[in-house]
Amino acid sequence: MYFGAIEAGGTKFVCAVGNDDYEVVERISFPTTAPEETLRRAFAFFDRFDLKAIGIGSFGPIDVTPGSRTYGYIGNTPKPFWGKFDLLGSVQRRYGLPAGWSTDVNIAALSEAAVGAGKGLDSVLYLTVGTGIGGGAVIRGRILEGFSHPEMGHIRIRRHPLDFFGGACPYHRDCLEGMAAGPSIEARLRQKGGEIDPDHEVWDYLADYLAQALYNYTMTLRPDIIVLGGGVMKSPALLPKVKAFLPELIASYVEIPPVDKYLVHPQLADNAGIVGGFILAEQALDER
Amino acid sequence: MYFGAIEAGGTKFVCAVGNDDYEVVERISFPTTAPEETLRRAFAFFDRFDLKAIGIGSFGPIDVTPGSRTYGYIGNTPKPFWGKFDLLGSVQRRYGLPAGWSTDVNIAALSEAAVGAGKGLDSVLYLTVGTGIGGGAVIRGRILEGFSHPEMGHIRIRRHPLDFFGGACPYHRDCLEGMAAGPSIEARLRQKGGEIDPDHEVWDYLADYLAQALYNYTMTLRPDIIVLGGGVMKSPALLPKVKAFLPELIASYVEIPPVDKYLVHPQLADNAGIVGGFILAEQALDER
Repeated sequence: MYFGAIEAGGTKFVCAVGNDDYEVVERISFPTTAPEETLRRAFAFFDRFDLKAIGIGSFGPIDVTPGSRTYGYIGNTPKPFWGKFDLLGSVQRRYGLPAGWSTDVNIAALSEAAVGAGKGLDSVLYLTVGTGIGGGAVIRGRILEGFSHPEMGHIRIRRHPLDFFGGACPYHRDCLEGMAAGPSIEARLRQKGGEIDPDHEVWDYLADYLAQALYNYTMTLRPDIIVLGGGVMKSPALLPKVKAFLPELIASYVEIPPVDKYLVHPQLADNAGIVGGFILAEQALDER
Repeated sequence: MYFGAIEAGGTKFVCAVGNDDYEVVERISFPTTAPEETLRRAFAFFDRFDLKAIGIGSFGPIDVTPGSRTYGYIGNTPKPFWGKFDLLGSVQRRYGLPAGWSTDVNIAALSEAAVGAGKGLDSVLYLTVGTGIGGGAVIRGRILEGFSHPEMGHIRIRRHPLDFFGGACPYHRDCLEGMAAGPSIEARLRQKGGEIDPDHEVWDYLADYLAQALYNYTMTLRPDIIVLGGGVMKSPALLPKVKAFLPELIASYVEIPPVDKYLVHPQLADNAGIVGGFILAEQALDER
């Protein structure tokens, strides 16, 4: 019997089944269209396997509060038809299996913590910097949640004195995501990040904002490692600058691990979400 | 048999023994002088009781990393003779009992989470605003630690446009603690907080900084409740302003509990540290 995993992204759905070693037995991916059509394709895939549990990591915001009337639902999203959709309930009604439920960022964090860059460490922070910025923490193997899931991309940072961009977040304008996610680069320069020279000052701005955010997360969570994923983090200029700026902000007040071991790229690449889904499925099975 | 608790503050040591209901059977407090003299008084007190475990919450920085060579030691502190002192080891060598070890802020957080304002909630954040600013989080009954203990008081906040104070933190100048702890008030106005009119604009500055910090913690941890203790928080002008500012910063992006239930004063007052010490002692006993 297999674990099922759904990585429900805003543009792409990935479904997979895996064995007890979290190895992918088969996977399928397709565009995220309307909920009914999307789930029809997911169910057609999973119906072919004998599953023992399912783990779902979804685009957000989602309701992860146990006992809430809308637990398992997608929240307010601009994505047509998905707002207030009961994603977890739809899967559970179909299969009647133990099912784990969290955000897409959190299941990526879970897999990096369990079998990726954070393997063997107690406290793993995962941050993805792409179209948006999201963060998830895994403490002793468990996803960190409370009243709801974190929204680490929206913390406040200080403006760089030479950066006159107003910020792209529709809620907070110049929060971290507003100033350092991919769309902020395009809004400043009318070019995608991949087209921009590594010496361009925009990388200094982004590295400054990200270092400030990592400084605040460090002081709040004291993780053993911070895994930095997402398309924007692939820009070769960025991570070295962040590694230079973070110790300056800490100013020797607290100790962190050697910076090259503390700030790292993900290890699992494309399968991070899926593997995290298997782990979440296993946790749901264990807790049943 | 009793639980022992030590609340090792920088100026005052509190020792107590308690029963299984965390009720204080006897307590003693005395000034924190040199380590040898201080522990002599502590041992003279505890020697009179039959203990099963001890919990210690200490002023910091301290080493809480299991497996570290200096686990249980005080770190670099300006306090004479306490730097690099093996506080946990000294107690363990005397009594040979299971012993829990964390910061003074964390054991206060633990007691508020277990039997105080956060009772029954999964995720409790405790922040103390006094001579310094410190924070501790308790997730499902366990203190949040990773590579080390949090230093939440030192996160970065944005300067209030009308506040020209330079900041009092010797490491980061205008971090949260530098701008909003008690000494920042005295440095600005040459008066203690208790002497300052509730209408004075300094309360707007402090409330702004604290609201920004609570916003960042909220986005990072998503706690169920935030308990705000410490001498500065007793200023009647402060908490109402923080309650007004925080929702403005969130800007309806995420949901939080009703603000009067989300931001609260502590319930345990003087015994918070001691009760947290008993709970930490109990956890050490359970984990043995």
